[in-house]
Amino acid sequence: MHRAREPLPSGPVTDTTYQPLDCGSLPVRLGAHPDLLDRLGPVTSWRVVEVGDGNLNLVFIVRGERGALVIKQSLPYVRVFGEGWPMSRERAYFEYEAALRLGKRDPGRMPAPLGFDRAQSMAFMELLEPHRILRGELIAGRRFPKLGEHLGRYCARTAFRGSDWSMPTAARKADLALFAANVELCGITEDLVFTDPFFDCPRNRHDPALDADAARVRADSALKQAAMTLKQRFCSCAQTLLHGDLHTGSVMATAHDTRVIDAEFAFYGPIGFDIGSLLGNLWMSALARPGRGGDAAAIASDIRWTLDIAQAVHAEFVAEFTRLWRTERSGILGGTELFESQGDADGSEATLAALLDEIRADLLGFAGLEIHRRILGFAHVADFETIADADLRARCQRAALSVGRELVLQRDALRDIDDASMRVSSAIAASL
Amino acid sequence: MHRAREPLPSGPVTDTTYQPLDCGSLPVRLGAHPDLLDRLGPVTSWRVVEVGDGNLNLVFIVRGERGALVIKQSLPYVRVFGEGWPMSRERAYFEYEAALRLGKRDPGRMPAPLGFDRAQSMAFMELLEPHRILRGELIAGRRFPKLGEHLGRYCARTAFRGSDWSMPTAARKADLALFAANVELCGITEDLVFTDPFFDCPRNRHDPALDADAARVRADSALKQAAMTLKQRFCSCAQTLLHGDLHTGSVMATAHDTRVIDAEFAFYGPIGFDIGSLLGNLWMSALARPGRGGDAAAIASDIRWTLDIAQAVHAEFVAEFTRLWRTERSGILGGTELFESQGDADGSEATLAALLDEIRADLLGFAGLEIHRRILGFAHVADFETIADADLRARCQRAALSVGRELVLQRDALRDIDDASMRVSSAIAASL
Repeated sequence: MHRAREPLPSGPVTDTTYQPLDCGSLPVRLGAHPDLLDRLGPVTSWRVVEVGDGNLNLVFIVRGERGALVIKQSLPYVRVFGEGWPMSRERAYFEYEAALRLGKRDPGRMPAPLGFDRAQSMAFMELLEPHRILRGELIAGRRFPKLGEHLGRYCARTAFRGSDWSMPTAARKADLALFAANVELCGITEDLVFTDPFFDCPRNRHDPALDADAARVRADSALKQAAMTLKQRFCSCAQTLLHGDLHTGSVMATAHDTRVIDAEFAFYGPIGFDIGSLLGNLWMSALARPGRGGDAAAIASDIRWTLDIAQAVHAEFVAEFTRLWRTERSGILGGTELFESQGDADGSEATLAALLDEIRADLLGFAGLEIHRRILGFAHVADFETIADADLRARCQRAALSVGRELVLQRDALRDIDDASMRVSSAIAASL
Repeated sequence: MHRAREPLPSGPVTDTTYQPLDCGSLPVRLGAHPDLLDRLGPVTSWRVVEVGDGNLNLVFIVRGERGALVIKQSLPYVRVFGEGWPMSRERAYFEYEAALRLGKRDPGRMPAPLGFDRAQSMAFMELLEPHRILRGELIAGRRFPKLGEHLGRYCARTAFRGSDWSMPTAARKADLALFAANVELCGITEDLVFTDPFFDCPRNRHDPALDADAARVRADSALKQAAMTLKQRFCSCAQTLLHGDLHTGSVMATAHDTRVIDAEFAFYGPIGFDIGSLLGNLWMSALARPGRGGDAAAIASDIRWTLDIAQAVHAEFVAEFTRLWRTERSGILGGTELFESQGDADGSEATLAALLDEIRADLLGFAGLEIHRRILGFAHVADFETIADADLRARCQRAALSVGRELVLQRDALRDIDDASMRVSSAIAASL
């Protein structure tokens, strides 16, 4: 059911002492990390629980008398699929290296890294408490007043500070090279987001009520052409170090805090990819809202709030990216010698505006593809999946596909994010 | 007079036995390469001559009783500048690795590689004979009937076969990583092509008659914005393994053969860069033609021939890229599962057309910037430099700057290469 994947180009883990953790062996296995033992307190006080609910890895929470931490260990296969889909454990290494960088670029927005054991593909990090996965919280109707600000700023800071507008280019090129080895996880995105949903791939699944919609998508030449053009941008437009999988399931939140987790898909790609994926998921949350019922006013209010959050993410992204452009442009793409140093601040602002236009077109395209793959591809989202009424579920998904197509095909024409948001809003209204 | 450069991110050569070659020591130094000794015949029969006329390296021709070869050795500094501009000798390594790949992608178009000695930064290759550097041949008015076909095909094959449309993506990503370490030579292009000409950089020089023109360019906000946008594409759009310095001085030709040399600037960048640089240099050859005198009919005929060659390069590029698209699309960007496999060959052709449009806009922009940097930057071209009459020289260069600006700013609007060619032709007519 899956294609054989190409081997990692270099440096696979060959340590034969690797063993998957379990709750029982974990205290002994942690013995190699005295700093963590200190942090937790006496082993006799530990409580260990396995909490991994993701698709790929083992995740444990260890609580001791003095403190707690999370251990994430990758398996040599895809957890949700089993040993029939082998996958290098090196994804843990890429995640750790990415988290170090992304965490520094927007301090406080990722769990603090506490160490890494490459032989065991095991990362140790701060326990986020009482944070909960954003996707579920949104489905439960909870609201997060700072979400837009936190995530927009995160997208702007990580995008700008990982790029040739900011970094010493030798360091950026070294990072580009490092993450270019994250072939397998890039491959998942390349297949699952950009290709599979657009043909009859055995990995795909969809609601039977959407058979005709799926067939229509797979015969939609303009949409498929755009998917391939956007895939080209994903594969070759190495603007910055991306998280690579920034959806509402990769965000944990409390009322006042927001954290980004699970950076194993990290690689150098187009700036619009992370924020596009995030907006696509926020828009899906709004598109799925009618499926959860309630009175019309409550539904409308929830949808408005979610759309506003998506707009706030983008507004904050633009504001922060602009601020960084004006104050931190120290890399080889800075161009201050051509503009500010020659009294041409307008030229600098115009260059920024052109870049923000390019990023917006990209992110709308990526958002539209993300919506398609979550309905017609391998990995679905609870937002739609938890809608009990089959007809309503199909209507919500159909509305999402319709606006997803618009986002992809109109990505250059949609000149601001309010426009895109209105399209989502209209699609929801038409689905009711 | 130059900025300190960042160190190579990894793997600098540390072998302290490195020594620059000279004609006297060369026979002894070649003793470590018995295969080359075989190829040349007895040492007593050798004639050694140093022929390096480039900016960077030592180049020797060794002829023996049985055969001949070329030895190219990099120095730990920029030859044309001296020890005051240090530069890693690892550029020889990147050149060798690039030549292996480019040579396989279009067999017969580069000198055959005969070996590499990394500790000595010394590459051995086929002696091209009686080939001569194309730039000088064009200045001398010689014609090469197969030039357009050979170079257009070279650009198409190397572009396509080094990309994610063709290669296994793990191999492409490994190559991307390898050449990402070619930081210093990329840095030369990043500075000398995209930035320096557009501000008053001490490395720049220009004909005094062009003072006002240089000032105008450096105050031309729209042009500078485009330069920065194109620099961004150069830095982040990793579509294929480029030669990286494909001008008429990097081509050697006979009446029937054409070879590409000097790939030390190789890295993963936008497809349009190589062919754009080449067309920019062919157009400069035409733009400089009036400066060499002769009767009007001879001048017009030479200009027509040169413009036709530039058009032939592009036509052959498009034809061959199209052929490869239709027959060799095996990489992750291939998309045959979305198009051909679903009976949608038109979708595939439309995706190709969009890509060719993108490449054409890029190449026109890069050509326009190449023209600017050769007149206002550090490295000039003999085409203009050898025009004795100062007024005529200035008029030719001014015409070139004017059309260079058009190419950059109209790169999206110029819908085919004939259009661009007509602009060049008009600029020449206006300069006469």
